[in-house]
Amino acid sequence: MLRTHQLGTLNAENIGETVTLTGWVARRRDHGGVAFLDLRDASGFAQIVVRDEEDFHPLRNEFVLQITGKVERRPEGNENPALATGEIEVIADKVVVLNTAAPLPFQVDEHVEVGEEARLRHRYLDLRRPTPNRNIRLRSEANRIARNLLHDQGYCEIETPTLTRSTPEGARDFLVPARLSPGSWYALPQSPQLFKQLLQVGGFEKYYQIARCYRDEDFRADRQPEFTQLDIEASFVEQDDIIELGEALVKELWKLIDVEIPTPIARITYHEAMAKYGSDKPDLRFGLELTDMTEFFKDTEFGVFKAPHVGAVVMPGGATQPRRTLDGWQEFAKQRGAKGLAYVLYKQDGELAGPVAKNLTDVERAGLAEATGAKPGDCIFFAAGTQTEARALLGAARVEIGHRTGLIKDGDWAFVWVVDAPMFEPAAAAVASGDVAVGTGAWTAVHHAFTSPKPEFFDTFDTDPESALSYAYDIVCNGNEIGGGSIRIHQRDMQERVFNLMGLDKQSAESKFGFLLEGFKYGAPPHGGIALGWDRVLQLLTGSDSIRDVIAFPKTGGGFDPLTAAPAPITPQQRKEAGVDAKPEAKKAETNEPGEAK
Amino acid sequence: MLRTHQLGTLNAENIGETVTLTGWVARRRDHGGVAFLDLRDASGFAQIVVRDEEDFHPLRNEFVLQITGKVERRPEGNENPALATGEIEVIADKVVVLNTAAPLPFQVDEHVEVGEEARLRHRYLDLRRPTPNRNIRLRSEANRIARNLLHDQGYCEIETPTLTRSTPEGARDFLVPARLSPGSWYALPQSPQLFKQLLQVGGFEKYYQIARCYRDEDFRADRQPEFTQLDIEASFVEQDDIIELGEALVKELWKLIDVEIPTPIARITYHEAMAKYGSDKPDLRFGLELTDMTEFFKDTEFGVFKAPHVGAVVMPGGATQPRRTLDGWQEFAKQRGAKGLAYVLYKQDGELAGPVAKNLTDVERAGLAEATGAKPGDCIFFAAGTQTEARALLGAARVEIGHRTGLIKDGDWAFVWVVDAPMFEPAAAAVASGDVAVGTGAWTAVHHAFTSPKPEFFDTFDTDPESALSYAYDIVCNGNEIGGGSIRIHQRDMQERVFNLMGLDKQSAESKFGFLLEGFKYGAPPHGGIALGWDRVLQLLTGSDSIRDVIAFPKTGGGFDPLTAAPAPITPQQRKEAGVDAKPEAKKAETNEPGEAK
Repeated sequence: MLRTHQLGTLNAENIGETVTLTGWVARRRDHGGVAFLDLRDASGFAQIVVRDEEDFHPLRNEFVLQITGKVERRPEGNENPALATGEIEVIADKVVVLNTAAPLPFQVDEHVEVGEEARLRHRYLDLRRPTPNRNIRLRSEANRIARNLLHDQGYCEIETPTLTRSTPEGARDFLVPARLSPGSWYALPQSPQLFKQLLQVGGFEKYYQIARCYRDEDFRADRQPEFTQLDIEASFVEQDDIIELGEALVKELWKLIDVEIPTPIARITYHEAMAKYGSDKPDLRFGLELTDMTEFFKDTEFGVFKAPHVGAVVMPGGATQPRRTLDGWQEFAKQRGAKGLAYVLYKQDGELAGPVAKNLTDVERAGLAEATGAKPGDCIFFAAGTQTEARALLGAARVEIGHRTGLIKDGDWAFVWVVDAPMFEPAAAAVASGDVAVGTGAWTAVHHAFTSPKPEFFDTFDTDPESALSYAYDIVCNGNEIGGGSIRIHQRDMQERVFNLMGLDKQSAESKFGFLLEGFKYGAPPHGGIALGWDRVLQLLTGSDSIRDVIAFPKTGGGFDPLTAAPAPITPQQRKEAGVDAKPEAKKAETNEPGEAK
Repeated sequence: MLRTHQLGTLNAENIGETVTLTGWVARRRDHGGVAFLDLRDASGFAQIVVRDEEDFHPLRNEFVLQITGKVERRPEGNENPALATGEIEVIADKVVVLNTAAPLPFQVDEHVEVGEEARLRHRYLDLRRPTPNRNIRLRSEANRIARNLLHDQGYCEIETPTLTRSTPEGARDFLVPARLSPGSWYALPQSPQLFKQLLQVGGFEKYYQIARCYRDEDFRADRQPEFTQLDIEASFVEQDDIIELGEALVKELWKLIDVEIPTPIARITYHEAMAKYGSDKPDLRFGLELTDMTEFFKDTEFGVFKAPHVGAVVMPGGATQPRRTLDGWQEFAKQRGAKGLAYVLYKQDGELAGPVAKNLTDVERAGLAEATGAKPGDCIFFAAGTQTEARALLGAARVEIGHRTGLIKDGDWAFVWVVDAPMFEPAAAAVASGDVAVGTGAWTAVHHAFTSPKPEFFDTFDTDPESALSYAYDIVCNGNEIGGGSIRIHQRDMQERVFNLMGLDKQSAESKFGFLLEGFKYGAPPHGGIALGWDRVLQLLTGSDSIRDVIAFPKTGGGFDPLTAAPAPITPQQRKEAGVDAKPEAKKAETNEPGEAK
């Protein structure tokens, strides 16, 4: 080693020792022919005293030094109790410049005044700053905690392939030309889903992996083209077993930041979450449930409320919002595709004010407060339209109210399991929200095509897809979905019925998922699992604004890496060699159809 | 859970209990209206007694069952001491068939009579067999052991990106079209090399990752297009520090198979390894050093030995090899590109026999045994040609001799560090051996372009590249390179001199490695590291024939996956969406050149 001690480990016990240290110049102060350096390494800081001007004159911030010198007690009054090494300083005998540093594009400290693009372009400097450094180190600890817990429960870590077959799972695949089979392509996996199920068919019973996954999406809010999930699957389990495991994981992870999560974590059905909170990932750090006002307004004469669904949510203390703020809410609604957000101000004196109030009948006005639970001084927001639209708008408004009114507090944590999700949704709705429908049918899977119906829908899910509920469970933290899973289908005929409903005919199903269907023929056990969105979990644990803050080398919007300038054009030779433009051989194409076992 | 107990945990203490079990039918024997099932789960086997013919009649091998019944002591004389659960049996009250199994393509036991292609096509069945199952489980343990050791030494696990920039490292990159930047491509990393170095620039000091790597090679012996390495990098270290860490890892890993590796592990220089064993990955489970006979034959009149280099290796007891075997050695040599393998049989009676002997002078004949160390009864093999050719042939012959003579014994382990490798080799030689030369120069890096010269060559490596030695170290086990690393260059000017020598002009270097050179400007610390070839390590630990045996879902030659039939053709729509055929925008191309920090 080029050093005898790590800086942060020095203390009064080292006084009198000659030590060799290495690190970066964090700060330099000159005092009458003596320079004081704050030297930084991964363990912390120590103060170095350099008396020879020839030694210290050339030193600049972020120079890399090797210092040999003696540890001494700081002169009385110069101690720094904020620093672990604040009692001592090192008097340099020898200063070796291991490397210099050019003038920096930004300073290495907590206060950054440059944009994210500049920070990511020089990510190696950004990572020297305290917060990014701490984030990445916490991630390493989270990996360790999770692996230890899973190991203790008998889980086996298994690495699954990433150069694999294109198997649509709700997003586009990234593709990789196969030079040795010109015209053929690998796909990068959207998740290890099919492999982890096949590992259950393979008898491993308890699998996990911290897995890299890939989705070629249009970069919706805070997504990355490659991301990480803690991926888990087990055999002979029921929903409660996986939920219990998920709770144990979350409990251990939050201990990393000294938060004790009470378990069992509450559960709510998907339909209840949509009705009460207008969201399948409700933020339960606060109450403010939505009210269904459809019945209340069933005979209304107010045109806006003549709709299949009318709902309301109350903003405590919202009656005194100035006109400009109320106009802002209209803008808020318009950004979410609605026409506006109707409201009634329930004044402190009991008066109902605002443009909607005068359109209501006396009966409606008289019953409004009781029906919505509003108190004098509150504002009642309304949304009318289809049930889906109205709830989505009120759900968004509810969260915004939580922030504006201070009902959502820093340091609060609210977890909930959302269970009993519908198996299917109309394919058009999935496509509208940016997913890729797997088949050509009218219905597509809400969770994914491998999710088992609950037993009471075994016989009816394909004749009445709208009603069918699945064995799916999502875990939600402060309004963020941090994980989800399901009990899977393990029977070939049921899996075929699901594919069929989704509009995958027998041949397409064989071509796309034939190897899974084939596997199900040979004694596939009942199984289920979960995946935690690891980047999102870490974002929450570190209190970061974005998953980019917990990824060592993240990409910006559009999938661009400012550090390496990837993606980039390739040379004509690379293109030729990769076989991008070759026509696939007909023979190879046929091997897609797994045949019967001979 | 669908069970109350795991099968392998049942023992006499459970007698009298009613249990519910799940698992696969491994075997069924019928005895007069009673069926005995060996039921298997991940924990082991137990014997189930089914008395109701209606229950057992439909059962076939690999059916998945849920059995409820009472644990009883086996009738006297029926115990199976070979089985952990051999004292007990479970009398089934209730038999639920959780899933059926079609007739199997092969049986699930130790004895496989089908080829690898069939096993991989039905890998989920293959993995139920004891050996593949054990291999994958050992891999999980190896991961754990390595991570624990590295954690205890203060290493931080950091995930690096896999959708990144094409940076030639000696093989071809796999490429990924970037749909959102049509005409631009990501590359899958050949290793996390540049990122782990940038993490050192970023001040992490101790990094590790069990990393997926990708090389688009022509599938030389037992390689996979995607493979795994235990990747390590640290700052302020010297060669001995990384070697010590490597030894600690290897020691812990081999404990998994109850082998105690003595440390420190011996070191040999590259040049010594080539001279003594004709290989940079010498198998030291046995001796049999090569002899340099060039001086001995300097005045020879035998035409074959009039060559720049003549070497010899002795085969103990080889003098009695029949003519057919000696002809076989000629074939062995020809397969390695040589004309043949000259030999002299040193008969038990002292006579020198074989076609070469009569071409030697009396002086040569008289001195041969002493010069080569041959004893009566041995065979002396010779190779003549360039030093490189002759050593390569004799090195291969030496290993073959080791196997044929029983000098290499099962269960022997020999580790060695090969140090002081040359920095450079002629580019033509690298290309001939299947690598891709990074630059257009006459010289290319033996290890890689980021390897530091030893200090005594700092000034001369670019004027005398042939002599320059590097701070590279490979760890070799039983003739297999299982890991390699180096102290890296951390100074921008030295890195530029290396690129320059390799024929990368300033502009190409900037375009390909600009972000690394840029990083080196801002206080890059001295650093070095190592990567262990994780698949190879596991192959050795499990005693497998191939790395395919320690990968859950491996590919066959040509990069084909018999299970999913990947790679496969893509649809015209996928091709269109991926932007494969788009022309890159000129603007994007320019961002490849990192500019100066503003």
